[in-house]
Amino acid sequence: MDRRGLLIVLSSPSGAGKSTLTGRLRDWDDSLRFSVSATTREPRDGEVDGEHYFFVSVDEFQRQVNDREMLEHARVFGNYYGSPKAPVKAAIDAGKDVLFDIDWQGAQQIATSDLKDHVLSIFILPPSISELHRRLVSRGQDDATVIEGRMQKSWDEISHWDSYDYVLINDDLDETEARLKTIISAERLRASQQPGLMDHVRRLQQEFEER
Amino acid sequence: MDRRGLLIVLSSPSGAGKSTLTGRLRDWDDSLRFSVSATTREPRDGEVDGEHYFFVSVDEFQRQVNDREMLEHARVFGNYYGSPKAPVKAAIDAGKDVLFDIDWQGAQQIATSDLKDHVLSIFILPPSISELHRRLVSRGQDDATVIEGRMQKSWDEISHWDSYDYVLINDDLDETEARLKTIISAERLRASQQPGLMDHVRRLQQEFEER
Repeated sequence: MDRRGLLIVLSSPSGAGKSTLTGRLRDWDDSLRFSVSATTREPRDGEVDGEHYFFVSVDEFQRQVNDREMLEHARVFGNYYGSPKAPVKAAIDAGKDVLFDIDWQGAQQIATSDLKDHVLSIFILPPSISELHRRLVSRGQDDATVIEGRMQKSWDEISHWDSYDYVLINDDLDETEARLKTIISAERLRASQQPGLMDHVRRLQQEFEER
Repeated sequence: MDRRGLLIVLSSPSGAGKSTLTGRLRDWDDSLRFSVSATTREPRDGEVDGEHYFFVSVDEFQRQVNDREMLEHARVFGNYYGSPKAPVKAAIDAGKDVLFDIDWQGAQQIATSDLKDHVLSIFILPPSISELHRRLVSRGQDDATVIEGRMQKSWDEISHWDSYDYVLINDDLDETEARLKTIISAERLRASQQPGLMDHVRRLQQEFEER
């Protein structure tokens, strides 16, 4: 049965375990792709164009936005980031799901795009704020001011939890991973994701009429 | 995490394997209930009021319809059948799912009822018309005219496949059973089915503000 791919939008505050979970999904299923963002920032050492990012000029980025070639985009610290639509469209038409690791503003733009019928959105909540704080501190990279900034941003993200289809509280990584997989497996079976159903019903109709 | 139950509407043409599948679901999960219909027809031997059906008079049935106490109802061969709303509401408020084994007309009424936000609808298609016919004949109870009538009714049912959330082709009972369970497990995780999420986010907010 041929199927259409899903746009799987996964959002969460920093420190809720999203990176670990997307890593596990990456190893899970061959038909799951990760959306590669376009950005106007300079490549860092080791970053490969088309793999980590599509590196483009500001002019090219703005042309793509104007020509509606971006599913969503945002400006962060003076640089533009966005999700080009063409590779996503090609992937879902080939029956591959595309995972977006984006914030609530990107999620909202994708949810109102012309691919909205194929969007599955999932939000990961932390079990508690103290646990979120603990995870941010335990990375050991940032001073208190930076961590407080991240906490504020995390709360801003959490406040948009209720516009997602599914919301999971990540108090157990294995359990949350299993739930993510159950949700994706089920949503792949939605009638709207199965263009082959129409052919099947046409065959049934022909068979019924030719009896 | 307290959850709200789902109204699980399962429809299919006669002979597509629905009875076998609902039987397997019955044994699967303790929090799955089966909707008990009200009817105006006479009880048959061994039928228990409140278990197989709620047996009511025509006047009482019509009063319930007029007072919007029925989620859906229909008249079949001169008798009324319907799904009383009160026990369904009580079950989903207690976190129990309710399974409805009804046709497309009942499904449509439930999908437009005031419980529509909690409806999960699934349609089971047969692999082929010849297989459907074979299953109807192999029951060995009916003559050719009756079977042809059932085939016509089956086709009428099939023609409404595309108003369901999920559509499964039952070419393998075990596979279809597994898919049904995956779909139900996932839909239980929907944000709209988890009233406890709101409390969790309130606790996060309080914790965030009191740091």
